[in-house]
Amino acid sequence: MIYSFEENPTTEQTDEIYMREALKLAKRAFDEDEVPIGAIIVSQGKIIGKGYNLTQRLNDVTAHAEMQAFTAAANYLGGKYLKDCTLYVTVEPCVMCAGAAYWTQISKIVFGVYDDKRGSSKFGQLFHPKTEIKNGVLEEECSELIKSFFRNKRDK
Amino acid sequence: MIYSFEENPTTEQTDEIYMREALKLAKRAFDEDEVPIGAIIVSQGKIIGKGYNLTQRLNDVTAHAEMQAFTAAANYLGGKYLKDCTLYVTVEPCVMCAGAAYWTQISKIVFGVYDDKRGSSKFGQLFHPKTEIKNGVLEEECSELIKSFFRNKRDK
Repeated sequence: MIYSFEENPTTEQTDEIYMREALKLAKRAFDEDEVPIGAIIVSQGKIIGKGYNLTQRLNDVTAHAEMQAFTAAANYLGGKYLKDCTLYVTVEPCVMCAGAAYWTQISKIVFGVYDDKRGSSKFGQLFHPKTEIKNGVLEEECSELIKSFFRNKRDK
Repeated sequence: MIYSFEENPTTEQTDEIYMREALKLAKRAFDEDEVPIGAIIVSQGKIIGKGYNLTQRLNDVTAHAEMQAFTAAANYLGGKYLKDCTLYVTVEPCVMCAGAAYWTQISKIVFGVYDDKRGSSKFGQLFHPKTEIKNGVLEEECSELIKSFFRNKRDK
């Protein structure tokens, strides 16, 4: 999908638009009883990779949203480096996903809400030094989705 | 494959036997012009997951030996946790693989040689606190395989 804008949008506007796409995927995870995290990768205004958390369904700890999006984007590009791409992910990447992001040399990572437990920033600077990091985009919505998921789990 | 021993082997002996299996996979990576790293996962004397680095062939930075071995072992067990398992890997896991190992809650990780650049120990303690770590098993062979790979690359 390529977004067309009548006027030049601000970075804040495009970040929110893309984060909303990631949120849609996170909601799909929620509906499938997976920890609701979604991710997309954008290159030149086009979504070239998507993923949402599937660790339960696939019985696979490596099936995080970001990991699937990295694999899909690299597959789309025909190369494993994502140098001119941006990852939008609803929750801060964990150590594993930050480590994978490092290898992709991705240009930019935008996330919604910090993960206070396994978010990679708790463990130092694990991203590639050239990767730009931005947080807090649609933070409340990203946060509320996760909280609601675990609230439902506790109430069951 | 299940190994049967005439007498009770020492941990050192079994570690070497399993690391030799990981080395066989690393050599397969070498022959396929991939960075030569191999990994196996052992549970109760049985190899339940294998992998070798396929990042070039698959165009995928997430296709490290350990990641494939984790996925295979979880698939074999029908559950994503590898609590009574040991990972044998020829080279120290990177940040991504250490992060994945954390999620598996694997019991033990045995590796051959430290990775001075992206080995996870350079970035602090990223493994699960309950995971036992051992290094230096068949260190010279594991190291020589990697060095030989990059020597060949430089000479080309």
